[in-house]
Amino acid sequence: MGKLSSKDVLRSDQFSKDEITLILETARRYEAAVDAGEVLDVMKGKVLSTLFFEPSTRTRLSFETAMLRLGGGVITVAEARSSSAAKGESLHDTIKTVEGYADVIVLRHPQIGAAKEAAEATHRPVLNAGDGAGQHPTQSLLDLYTILKEQGKVDGLRIALTGDLKNGRTVHSLALLLSNYDVSFLFVAPDALKMPREIVEQVKAAGVDVAETDDLATAIREADVLYMTRIQKERFEDTAEYDRLKDAFILRRAMLSEAKSNFTIMHPLPRVNEIETDVDDHSGAAYFRQSANGVPIRMALLALVTGRA
Amino acid sequence: MGKLSSKDVLRSDQFSKDEITLILETARRYEAAVDAGEVLDVMKGKVLSTLFFEPSTRTRLSFETAMLRLGGGVITVAEARSSSAAKGESLHDTIKTVEGYADVIVLRHPQIGAAKEAAEATHRPVLNAGDGAGQHPTQSLLDLYTILKEQGKVDGLRIALTGDLKNGRTVHSLALLLSNYDVSFLFVAPDALKMPREIVEQVKAAGVDVAETDDLATAIREADVLYMTRIQKERFEDTAEYDRLKDAFILRRAMLSEAKSNFTIMHPLPRVNEIETDVDDHSGAAYFRQSANGVPIRMALLALVTGRA
Amino acid sequence: MGKLSSKDVLRSDQFSKDEITLILETARRYEAAVDAGEVLDVMKGKVLSTLFFEPSTRTRLSFETAMLRLGGGVITVAEARSSSAAKGESLHDTIKTVEGYADVIVLRHPQIGAAKEAAEATHRPVLNAGDGAGQHPTQSLLDLYTILKEQGKVDGLRIALTGDLKNGRTVHSLALLLSNYDVSFLFVAPDALKMPREIVEQVKAAGVDVAETDDLATAIREADVLYMTRIQKERFEDTAEYDRLKDAFILRRAMLSEAKSNFTIMHPLPRVNEIETDVDDHSGAAYFRQSANGVPIRMALLALVTGRA
Repeated sequence: MGKLSSKDVLRSDQFSKDEITLILETARRYEAAVDAGEVLDVMKGKVLSTLFFEPSTRTRLSFETAMLRLGGGVITVAEARSSSAAKGESLHDTIKTVEGYADVIVLRHPQIGAAKEAAEATHRPVLNAGDGAGQHPTQSLLDLYTILKEQGKVDGLRIALTGDLKNGRTVHSLALLLSNYDVSFLFVAPDALKMPREIVEQVKAAGVDVAETDDLATAIREADVLYMTRIQKERFEDTAEYDRLKDAFILRRAMLSEAKSNFTIMHPLPRVNEIETDVDDHSGAAYFRQSANGVPIRMALLALVTGRA
Repeated sequence: MGKLSSKDVLRSDQFSKDEITLILETARRYEAAVDAGEVLDVMKGKVLSTLFFEPSTRTRLSFETAMLRLGGGVITVAEARSSSAAKGESLHDTIKTVEGYADVIVLRHPQIGAAKEAAEATHRPVLNAGDGAGQHPTQSLLDLYTILKEQGKVDGLRIALTGDLKNGRTVHSLALLLSNYDVSFLFVAPDALKMPREIVEQVKAAGVDVAETDDLATAIREADVLYMTRIQKERFEDTAEYDRLKDAFILRRAMLSEAKSNFTIMHPLPRVNEIETDVDDHSGAAYFRQSANGVPIRMALLALVTGRA
Repeated sequence: MGKLSSKDVLRSDQFSKDEITLILETARRYEAAVDAGEVLDVMKGKVLSTLFFEPSTRTRLSFETAMLRLGGGVITVAEARSSSAAKGESLHDTIKTVEGYADVIVLRHPQIGAAKEAAEATHRPVLNAGDGAGQHPTQSLLDLYTILKEQGKVDGLRIALTGDLKNGRTVHSLALLLSNYDVSFLFVAPDALKMPREIVEQVKAAGVDVAETDDLATAIREADVLYMTRIQKERFEDTAEYDRLKDAFILRRAMLSEAKSNFTIMHPLPRVNEIETDVDDHSGAAYFRQSANGVPIRMALLALVTGRA
């Protein structure tokens, strides 16, 4: 049994550096096997239950693909609201029931802490696919895997996180996960949407160098990796301020002339308009490759937590 | 070909004692195989269609898991209302169409008799997963299987059915199925929700001893198996009577002190509050194991009716 | 690699006669294998994504069954409206994302041209499962396959298309596809719903003989194959005209006495009342067999476009 066997995956900061390395190497191994046309039967005869209390088609399909690519089967609850929960069943009871069907459970839930509550209810491994404003650890791991694949390394990189750093679950989790490496950060946001002080302090305490700016051009010039997120109108009390700021955080192809030659552009998707489509054919536009990297990462996690990797 | 090959599963009272024994033994065999980590390919290359005209996530997932554990594939219509039926297609035509895709069909429908109508439309086996206030035979079979597993036998047991015995499809079907065995019944309900006379007469005609009470404590003291169901407020014309009665039919841990040492507590789930959560870690609290038993029972039925067991 | 490898399937008029023959022969081969109880693993380890931006349960289940019968896996978005598209994501981005999961994509979309747009976004093969009033090429191919199976040939047949020929996507596509063969057409419709002139001209230009009538009895007497479609009330400006006409286009068993002995009756389904149920046990009532033929045709297409047939 591997070291992650029977473990839950609840938070992006739960893993030791060794565990992170194991996940990344397992993902790399499965990705190579699929690319080579190998048919895997790691999970043959096993069943994954996806249980989505709020819809997230992208995340659901990525997990289901991962299970199918490992030779396993999938039972799906794409919209759990309309099911037993509607009849007044507690999350505990729902999980105890699904435990009777599936070998491993993927949960998406609108409430912070739901994944932890689910994990406590069952001896089956639970993978957190997002619990409201809480954690979404498989997203952070696929982000890290993408940086490693695109740049060939993680240590030594200057990584710019930009957009709504105040409210963005994705950038908080990624910043903490990357603090396991010898990186430096550039946090790029308007004043109203700056990275929370506690995240900045936590990252600095881990020995990571942090700079902050509200200028996207600086980030493009200095960074190896630019991680874009969306600025949402509804986050601003003052609509006029939103209108003034939003254009400063839209990435256009013309802005990339001063970027490094092996510049990497990431985004958790879906994008609306914060990256213009003329950026898509830039060699460093990695966001669709990033999305595809969710499959090998989730293959690795499914196989590791069930002790079959 | 086995004796259930090409048969439909429509009612819990359709089976001979020999057929019931065959189903239970087949379920036991598949459960042991899965527990031993065997990968089954009994249904390899075959396709199950689940067709749910009303949502029942628990039942759907249990059937789908059963098919996957047998190595088969599944096509799902989780909410058939929004499909062809909405375009005015008859159930007959829907079934004739699905017959062109699937080797076996699981139907859930809000109308009594829908499963029979479906079975008459097709030469494929149809499994009734609940037709309104009608039948839900796979639930009764998994209940029976649970009693057998928990108690090691069925003959000789005193079985208490409690809750809304007047309207409960589940308890009616189970009472009739258990009448194939040498059991005695204790029907525990308030006057307004007593077991219908025709069920009592049918059970007695089968030679089963029946007693009735409205006192849950008596049942706990006397019975080997206590089968709980919910008392629903909307069943009472007089709300005050509901408020007076409901507490008398809630099971609490403290009430179990006088129970037999190998007492078994069952419930078809979902529960709302009729079994308090402090009962869950009682060794006889079997309701989540009962739910899990749906998988081997449905594996047995799927394999038997397709002639592959 | 076969000649259709890596191709998209977007329009029923995209195929050469050789390609049509290849598809029909591949379908026949897979159908024979399934009928013989063979378990195919042509698509083992591969993943199909069905992506339905409007519901079409029949078409979705047929494609999913086809993939499962080939040994592949399926990820499903049965109602894509409630997913990322609702967050403002473009079809291009959705397809680029799904490309990261699946080996082949089936798209149903309410807008004409959506399948073509999807195909241009990805290097994965895209199969058009209906794009609004546009094309539905797999329906036309299964219609053709049905005629071939029911009649043993296509050349030399007199084929009557009837119902709403003005607005019917299905009959337009089928007429064009059949123009590859030495057939003659009888277009049977009320004046208000006649076949569009451009389709008639295109068919004639391909060398096919065309006659038109508004009399269903003539079609039954003369044709080898009668293809029924529905006349929808909402197509008529004048409701009185609808009421006058509708009965003339309902097929009843008594009307078949003058039909040829090997007469074939087809319908794309679902029917509402345009074929009375007493027609169903006529030996030539092929509409449910026609629906079932969708599976081998879609097996053939999935295997051919992924280069695995």
